[in-house]
Amino acid sequence: MNVIETKQGLKCWVATMKQDNRSIGFVPTMGFLHEGHLSLIRQARKENDVVIVSIFVNPAQFGPGEDFERYPRDLPKDTALAESVGADVLFVPSAEEMYPAEAQVTLTAGPQADRLCGRSRPGHFDGVLKVVTKLFHLTEADRAYFGQKDAQQLAIIESLVRDFDFPVEIRRGATVREEDGLAKSSRNVYLSPEERSEAPAIHEALRLGREATLSGRDPVPVMADHIERHTSGTIDYIEFLSYPELTEPIGSGEAVLAVAVQFEKARLIDNVILNLKEKY
Amino acid sequence: MNVIETKQGLKCWVATMKQDNRSIGFVPTMGFLHEGHLSLIRQARKENDVVIVSIFVNPAQFGPGEDFERYPRDLPKDTALAESVGADVLFVPSAEEMYPAEAQVTLTAGPQADRLCGRSRPGHFDGVLKVVTKLFHLTEADRAYFGQKDAQQLAIIESLVRDFDFPVEIRRGATVREEDGLAKSSRNVYLSPEERSEAPAIHEALRLGREATLSGRDPVPVMADHIERHTSGTIDYIEFLSYPELTEPIGSGEAVLAVAVQFEKARLIDNVILNLKEKY
Repeated sequence: MNVIETKQGLKCWVATMKQDNRSIGFVPTMGFLHEGHLSLIRQARKENDVVIVSIFVNPAQFGPGEDFERYPRDLPKDTALAESVGADVLFVPSAEEMYPAEAQVTLTAGPQADRLCGRSRPGHFDGVLKVVTKLFHLTEADRAYFGQKDAQQLAIIESLVRDFDFPVEIRRGATVREEDGLAKSSRNVYLSPEERSEAPAIHEALRLGREATLSGRDPVPVMADHIERHTSGTIDYIEFLSYPELTEPIGSGEAVLAVAVQFEKARLIDNVILNLKEKY
Repeated sequence: MNVIETKQGLKCWVATMKQDNRSIGFVPTMGFLHEGHLSLIRQARKENDVVIVSIFVNPAQFGPGEDFERYPRDLPKDTALAESVGADVLFVPSAEEMYPAEAQVTLTAGPQADRLCGRSRPGHFDGVLKVVTKLFHLTEADRAYFGQKDAQQLAIIESLVRDFDFPVEIRRGATVREEDGLAKSSRNVYLSPEERSEAPAIHEALRLGREATLSGRDPVPVMADHIERHTSGTIDYIEFLSYPELTEPIGSGEAVLAVAVQFEKARLIDNVILNLKEKY
């Protein structure tokens, strides 16, 4: 596996692959890899000739007071993990390499960014769009892999690709969970032991919410009640929206039931995507 | 030469060229081709294995009350001209093909768009960025060609490419002029015979402005005086800015001396780029 730190180095490697007509799979990450990332890399490995994994804790998508500085990092372990599941390149640029100068042109997410996490993280998705656009151009990927756990991010990136005709196919990866149902997340390390024992209640709440929806009841109070009774966290949002539009009212296609809970040092998110066609 | 109307058709052709490792040159136009466009196509022809020319009168870059509806069009003549200078593909999508749905994500030009033409054409360059981004992605061009006559557009597109690491090289084409100095433009057909005879004064003014600058005087009043005395048009702007930043004060690198004059049915623009290093 090649570890590449510069854009020029990556471009050069990509050009060689393109010359040989190798298809390129790309998995962008912020590092501190867990089973969720590894399952995306394995999927990319199966569907492409070569695989690029990037690790970049993107300052543009963190707001003031958010956890940019203390976002967990472990490059030696990540390198070993990425190699173990078959990545060909690990791209690990510095912030200066990715953002050498003040940008003139800006990308702005649309109304999809006003709901769910976007409401409490203004500018977050604009920062995601910026780095993802740059990485799509640098990797010239044929397919890029995003986890459904970040359902809003996935929806917004699908819009980006459609709105601007990027020559990349977005592939969705299912959320990977701990045995007790907690969605895998790099931020889970921030949980205290007590919070960690409460956290599976988020997934349980989604299960209850899903059942409520399928039996024609409002899932939101059901979920709120379960989370309030079983965790010490504060509910940031519980929303039930059409997917991937992220609007209300929900239609007869897909819908997302999504939740964010703030614990003392960790804000956890989770969701389920429902196919309402199956119901109606 | 292939005339392609759909994005899917273009993508398919591009994929074949990529598989054969052919380099792709791309010349985006709004049609009504003149010698300025043809010189860009010839340049692309020399520097690439294959050449795509697009003709798309992009509604997104016209404001209300601008000349979108009556922008001159002549596809049969354009087809013959593009073929005569060696284009391999003429891409002529409809507006519905380019913009099938309302976009979620927006691209916005920075302070570079607040000067010169941007001041009287709010949103114009955002529309240019939108279509150019889509066309770069659809053509997967190695090199794209833009005329220096649209100096502000060129500067903003160079920023776009740099800010988002597009895998395309922007190539500048020199302004092509009529024998009397008038810059070639599709909009020149709007000029009345009298206006047409006055219009070379714009280029003469730029020459006088250049001389003034090189002898340490302010070029703006010199140019304004010349245009007011020799044309019936109204000066929209005369500006002297650093290039490609489009800011004041000008530094010791490149600078642009640019002018826009509104005639009855045509708004003409022209500019010269000065290398101030040669002077100081």
